[in-house]
Amino acid sequence: MTQPTDVLASQLAFLLELDKLKAIQRRTRPVGMSRYENSAEHSWHVALMAMLLAEHAEPPVAIDRVVKILLLHDIVEIDADDTFLYDEAAAVAKAGKEQAAAERLFGMLPAAQCDEFMALWREYEDRQTPEGRFAYACDRLLPMLQNLANQGQSWQENTVRLEQVLRKNLPINDAAPALWQYVRPRLEAAQQAGWLG
Amino acid sequence: MTQPTDVLASQLAFLLELDKLKAIQRRTRPVGMSRYENSAEHSWHVALMAMLLAEHAEPPVAIDRVVKILLLHDIVEIDADDTFLYDEAAAVAKAGKEQAAAERLFGMLPAAQCDEFMALWREYEDRQTPEGRFAYACDRLLPMLQNLANQGQSWQENTVRLEQVLRKNLPINDAAPALWQYVRPRLEAAQQAGWLG
Repeated sequence: MTQPTDVLASQLAFLLELDKLKAIQRRTRPVGMSRYENSAEHSWHVALMAMLLAEHAEPPVAIDRVVKILLLHDIVEIDADDTFLYDEAAAVAKAGKEQAAAERLFGMLPAAQCDEFMALWREYEDRQTPEGRFAYACDRLLPMLQNLANQGQSWQENTVRLEQVLRKNLPINDAAPALWQYVRPRLEAAQQAGWLG
Repeated sequence: MTQPTDVLASQLAFLLELDKLKAIQRRTRPVGMSRYENSAEHSWHVALMAMLLAEHAEPPVAIDRVVKILLLHDIVEIDADDTFLYDEAAAVAKAGKEQAAAERLFGMLPAAQCDEFMALWREYEDRQTPEGRFAYACDRLLPMLQNLANQGQSWQENTVRLEQVLRKNLPINDAAPALWQYVRPRLEAAQQAGWLG
């Protein structure tokens, strides 16, 4: 039987392991900053974004679960690293590496909590619920908004084309059509400004 | 009357303003890293910590509200900067600067959302509810755990004494006695190891 002290010890070991997400670098720079952002600060930003934009979800969502999904969604990068959305070669190996990472990391926790966190992470990956889809939509939209405020910084550095951005981010329209309607014409304008290929 | 497009525009302006929290430096270094952590990645870590340790709250808490409180609790540092817990001189000016910051930042939002976010931030500051107290307890405990895993890094760099740590962090005992019981003897051991004055 698991003792209460073992429960706490395993939770605290997991908690300190999370520090490693602060070293995982993304392709986006925070607006006005020269360094790249990391996946921990991004996870904060996107979880708060979901809270902020909840009213635009269609259908409506249980926002508390969306927030939890987003707090957890990138933890697998501790082992699997960040995969750039437009890197099609890396995408092939991504699912297997992330599944192994989820098993190792959530496996550090007491069984019931491992199951709970794994289910929340899978909800993001599978996008079979309004909450999973809205979480995914926020995660797609945020770096686009940063790029639009940053002269297309990560698009320009990685020679991304408008056609790729429209195709990869269309799932936003399934979870929050008002947000897609907002961003879509701005993407076209970004191409005209030369920020996107 | 506020138009729907104005609502979204003001929400997105706030969302991009949040990027600035990624530039606010704390006194703690993530375990195993040479740089200091920032308040955005800390906010992610502590919100997830609350989710992880919710079962240790006494009395039990509405954990979804604790998570929201913690996602918002440091945003005022965008204007007011981080105040080191053990800096008694800086503490005097802190409340006024943070109140002004909350008014400017949450004031960017539609009125109802401004009120909602302001109330969540005040709940952290006032600590009059179990949720406000548990949020505060997590925020106090996390840097202590990082220090215990880091040979007292921020304590040593800032010549902090055990007596200060015990006094400033005792509110953990009001919200999560099991967590205080866990950490207290380890603080005494840290002093014996020379990590704390």
